[in-house]
Amino acid sequence: MRAVTFSAPGEVVVKDVAEPQIEDARDAIVRIDSSGVCGSDLHIYHGRVQIEPGFTIGHEYVGTVIATGDDVREIAVGDRVMGCFQTACGRCFFCRRGLFHKCDHSRTFGHGATLGSLLGTQAEQALVPNADLVLRRVPEGMSDEVALFAGDVMGTAYHAVVESGMRPGDVAAVLGLGPVGLCAALLARAAGAARVIAVDSVPDRLAVAESFGAQPVHLTDGDPRAAAREATDGRGVDVCIEAVGDPRALETAIRLTRNCGAVQAVGVYAERCEVHMGLVWIKALTLRAGMANVIGHIDSVLALLAQHVVDPSPLVTHHMSLDDAPEAYARYDRREALKIVLKP
Amino acid sequence: MRAVTFSAPGEVVVKDVAEPQIEDARDAIVRIDSSGVCGSDLHIYHGRVQIEPGFTIGHEYVGTVIATGDDVREIAVGDRVMGCFQTACGRCFFCRRGLFHKCDHSRTFGHGATLGSLLGTQAEQALVPNADLVLRRVPEGMSDEVALFAGDVMGTAYHAVVESGMRPGDVAAVLGLGPVGLCAALLARAAGAARVIAVDSVPDRLAVAESFGAQPVHLTDGDPRAAAREATDGRGVDVCIEAVGDPRALETAIRLTRNCGAVQAVGVYAERCEVHMGLVWIKALTLRAGMANVIGHIDSVLALLAQHVVDPSPLVTHHMSLDDAPEAYARYDRREALKIVLKP
Amino acid sequence: MRAVTFSAPGEVVVKDVAEPQIEDARDAIVRIDSSGVCGSDLHIYHGRVQIEPGFTIGHEYVGTVIATGDDVREIAVGDRVMGCFQTACGRCFFCRRGLFHKCDHSRTFGHGATLGSLLGTQAEQALVPNADLVLRRVPEGMSDEVALFAGDVMGTAYHAVVESGMRPGDVAAVLGLGPVGLCAALLARAAGAARVIAVDSVPDRLAVAESFGAQPVHLTDGDPRAAAREATDGRGVDVCIEAVGDPRALETAIRLTRNCGAVQAVGVYAERCEVHMGLVWIKALTLRAGMANVIGHIDSVLALLAQHVVDPSPLVTHHMSLDDAPEAYARYDRREALKIVLKP
Amino acid sequence: MRAVTFSAPGEVVVKDVAEPQIEDARDAIVRIDSSGVCGSDLHIYHGRVQIEPGFTIGHEYVGTVIATGDDVREIAVGDRVMGCFQTACGRCFFCRRGLFHKCDHSRTFGHGATLGSLLGTQAEQALVPNADLVLRRVPEGMSDEVALFAGDVMGTAYHAVVESGMRPGDVAAVLGLGPVGLCAALLARAAGAARVIAVDSVPDRLAVAESFGAQPVHLTDGDPRAAAREATDGRGVDVCIEAVGDPRALETAIRLTRNCGAVQAVGVYAERCEVHMGLVWIKALTLRAGMANVIGHIDSVLALLAQHVVDPSPLVTHHMSLDDAPEAYARYDRREALKIVLKP
Repeated sequence: MRAVTFSAPGEVVVKDVAEPQIEDARDAIVRIDSSGVCGSDLHIYHGRVQIEPGFTIGHEYVGTVIATGDDVREIAVGDRVMGCFQTACGRCFFCRRGLFHKCDHSRTFGHGATLGSLLGTQAEQALVPNADLVLRRVPEGMSDEVALFAGDVMGTAYHAVVESGMRPGDVAAVLGLGPVGLCAALLARAAGAARVIAVDSVPDRLAVAESFGAQPVHLTDGDPRAAAREATDGRGVDVCIEAVGDPRALETAIRLTRNCGAVQAVGVYAERCEVHMGLVWIKALTLRAGMANVIGHIDSVLALLAQHVVDPSPLVTHHMSLDDAPEAYARYDRREALKIVLKP
Repeated sequence: MRAVTFSAPGEVVVKDVAEPQIEDARDAIVRIDSSGVCGSDLHIYHGRVQIEPGFTIGHEYVGTVIATGDDVREIAVGDRVMGCFQTACGRCFFCRRGLFHKCDHSRTFGHGATLGSLLGTQAEQALVPNADLVLRRVPEGMSDEVALFAGDVMGTAYHAVVESGMRPGDVAAVLGLGPVGLCAALLARAAGAARVIAVDSVPDRLAVAESFGAQPVHLTDGDPRAAAREATDGRGVDVCIEAVGDPRALETAIRLTRNCGAVQAVGVYAERCEVHMGLVWIKALTLRAGMANVIGHIDSVLALLAQHVVDPSPLVTHHMSLDDAPEAYARYDRREALKIVLKP
Repeated sequence: MRAVTFSAPGEVVVKDVAEPQIEDARDAIVRIDSSGVCGSDLHIYHGRVQIEPGFTIGHEYVGTVIATGDDVREIAVGDRVMGCFQTACGRCFFCRRGLFHKCDHSRTFGHGATLGSLLGTQAEQALVPNADLVLRRVPEGMSDEVALFAGDVMGTAYHAVVESGMRPGDVAAVLGLGPVGLCAALLARAAGAARVIAVDSVPDRLAVAESFGAQPVHLTDGDPRAAAREATDGRGVDVCIEAVGDPRALETAIRLTRNCGAVQAVGVYAERCEVHMGLVWIKALTLRAGMANVIGHIDSVLALLAQHVVDPSPLVTHHMSLDDAPEAYARYDRREALKIVLKP
Repeated sequence: MRAVTFSAPGEVVVKDVAEPQIEDARDAIVRIDSSGVCGSDLHIYHGRVQIEPGFTIGHEYVGTVIATGDDVREIAVGDRVMGCFQTACGRCFFCRRGLFHKCDHSRTFGHGATLGSLLGTQAEQALVPNADLVLRRVPEGMSDEVALFAGDVMGTAYHAVVESGMRPGDVAAVLGLGPVGLCAALLARAAGAARVIAVDSVPDRLAVAESFGAQPVHLTDGDPRAAAREATDGRGVDVCIEAVGDPRALETAIRLTRNCGAVQAVGVYAERCEVHMGLVWIKALTLRAGMANVIGHIDSVLALLAQHVVDPSPLVTHHMSLDDAPEAYARYDRREALKIVLKP
């Protein structure tokens, strides 16, 4: 079958690979109908994530179950399903607490040996371990494009909003309006934020945020801190979602947030950096970081999508053939696209 | 000044009463611009709540501060304000925990000696004790009609939804579509409910619920339990708000709700009644009841109203003069109105 | 192998039954070293729980793993283990939320066809489905007697205390001092209750409660409500654990508890009964009921037992041979024992 | 009256100052029976906190109410009281949410103009603003020495433990065994920690921690990370309380804590510093910092002290006369004392 594979930094190749086989009683095999190109795929593309040349990449997917192991019970052959970007064992210390994102045996699709040697989903088929936890049937009437978001981007946005402790009537800020930040803005509004201040420096993204009900504020041409003060009688926002993963964004988040508020950092950090702990301390902030518990939130996210409470489809800017993956990655890399959907 | 007073069951009288005077350093006096007639006023009207003849009634109000005691700091003369239906002392065990609705020294406007001998707000002026906690400035641009809801009906709906533990993506049910139930349906949607099943037997109210984004289900012509099952793969709703205050409604709520779900009873109970504890136990439900912490939630509610996240104005069916209060009560009693606003 | 089986109300019989066989890849077989006789076994003994004659009973157990299916990973042959009284599938809606006690496919040991046709543990061996979730290794140095409590009685007490929302410094009450109530009193103290008021009418049980750090109050010779008021400046207790399962106990719990407090009903209810909803409403109580999530709490409970933070061993009043089960049940039925441990 | 005043870095002077007068209806005047010397007094002593020469210092106090303003209701002249180290207005945005530590109008005793120009309590008398929130009656039978802890050190420890989200059965670590760290270790045990790993480099403090039920680990001679792993099957502690206020301590806290665990930083931070955000992110930690909400927790803390659930009296190493304050500060500065109580 055909699959998109990493070849070298800046180079992905579509080539023929072996079809997956059921290896474990809990596995399923999904024939992929649509897969997405995601911001984290770019980390691979840029060579920032170590991965073996020739490894199949991709981790957003919608498709049809074509085989299951003997111990799969929640889904069946023929089901139209979407899946989460990572797997979980369902029985370790963390899974037993519902913290599936920190499963001791978690594997991430399409990230090579570093994250569990699980082949990616930008392919004609994919093997899905522990399918009962990782896959969900796509609700009737939901398009591939929408369902794709549930397994990664919208799940991450849901995690950010819900874990931040935001309550209806709060004022939220979102820093960084990539797909995750935009979905977080959308979800914060859907969860009852009175106002969402959405900060970025790309006009197109600010425009999408505005269409999602947020108040767009240009990072440099505008004044995010003034906007936060104006919206809150000078106190600062109740919660701030930092969707960039950069120390300067974190500092801005800390400054925008009111005393006893929460900063939720969903952008990726990999190293030490300077943090204004003096402000964190004097403001008595709660700072949370990390990957999202997409498996834990998947039912809620699918319900919101199915009922059109949130609709991320404006973020889908391109549909392309799987064979055109090299071109898709190049476009995404040039920031010409928000979400590209590949179809075999 | 003129004021609406209770005279006898079924009879309210507008008469001249003394103007209020500042009695305590924390008092304020509000010149009333608008006051509402509420479902709980009907309990008085029907003689079910004991109250002294001649006592001024009413507890929903918007107006302008015309005098303050020496120790009022958060509001000032000239401020356009709305107020909560009850007061709180701000320093007892319960107030220190933010549980203002159970303040040891709470007084309710317009309910006679039983609830603190605090004259009502269906009058030209009202004395407001502990004004810093009880009053809030009306956000710029908000109409009296909308602001009126914050101090009682919408505050109660907010309490019901937030205290139920509902999360974005959940399915909620609301039983009883009076103003509180309708606002609860509206707020549940605004807080991210994927679906809200709204149950009543009055077609007009079901129609309003539908316009608020809920799924209307007639109590007897429809099948609430089937609707709950259909919306949840047979599990039952995640949370159910019981806005009736009747054992049969409570039983329905218990039946509609899924295992480990929550039933939030905002309808008033005064006595013992039969409860299906067997179901509560086997389903491992959480059942909460009681009056709302309107003071505790008032900022959030005003923010939601100010930003038009929720708009209760469709519930305002009548505007009448304070002098016409007898006619207003009669109409409300005949269920011809959802919310009547009285203006002096 | 020998096993204790239900024969007829008031009659259990030890007889030879077939040894268990691995039926599913997730099964384990445990050679039972110790099993307990529990209050819920008495429901069976009294014929109040329907069960097939000849069915092996018992659901508290400690032993050694002698076989595992191919898909058991967390435990291994040779491990000394204890197990929970019920199983969970680990993948349904409820398990994915950590609500293992309401698993769609839950089965309870030793309760016949009604609760999943899973043979009991008062036997020489037991088959344990989904062993990765149901079994845990016994911490080094922990006796069988102590470990037995983790899988049912202490797990239930932990659930009651933690789910009640009790905070360090609170005053708690426990109604009903059977093994669960006594363990709840012990655990409430261990979790930081400033005071625990323990109510029963059996002097011996009150004495154990006192030795556990609680304040014993005789139900009728003493005055539980006066004790609650005295301990709380007249407010009532912060949380009350109702470990009886009787409407009168529930009424007492509601009366003992302060405004905005919590009543946690762990005693079993099976039917409708009169509840003072007027008090629940006016006090704005939270009422929770239901079986405990023992699987969800098992690690915490084992840690508390292993570190001797709580020590339930004073509750073990009898050690008997499995062959003497008929005599053990008779004694337990005569309330001559708190906990009987049976050894094959 | 006599009072301890800051004179210059390293120099405090006992001198005659004016007696306080009631200035506001909510004030009370307390005749001081005992006051404590606290670690934060050392910041003043060292000149790290700006304060006007001649300003009365001190913020821990027990005494007797000798005057009250007209609007004080919860306490009365003649009451033996303890007080919190800071005041709160009871009506601002933060107070209304129970976040008294971030009150918009908060003032801290004995910290000069920077923190509200409120004279300190190391004096014969002290003026206490908003006495209904700041003061509490000392429970019958409680010594001055114990009551002193409630208003600052033990309140801070309570905040750290409770806000960390620690649950009974968890493993906690405490870094830094000054009075706050030691009380946090004591309280963590009292709140049900299965194990508390207490880290410092001063043998005497490690010995006190051990006597409080914690497992002492020397920072450099021992191996805190190995201890954390050993206690948790290699996962790391569930919560870590960082009671130092130093980037290296914070890094250790982050390393000791398991995935999805919580780091609670109670030690003071004033500036930017390097934080290993990569670890915070990959571990999905929650990091909270800031001063404690002592007013919010005071009732719970007093209840725990009154019932001897926690007893901090071993920390009181010295009793001295107010006149000997210069000597007391010098000793404290030489780390010869954990807690010094001054009596006028």
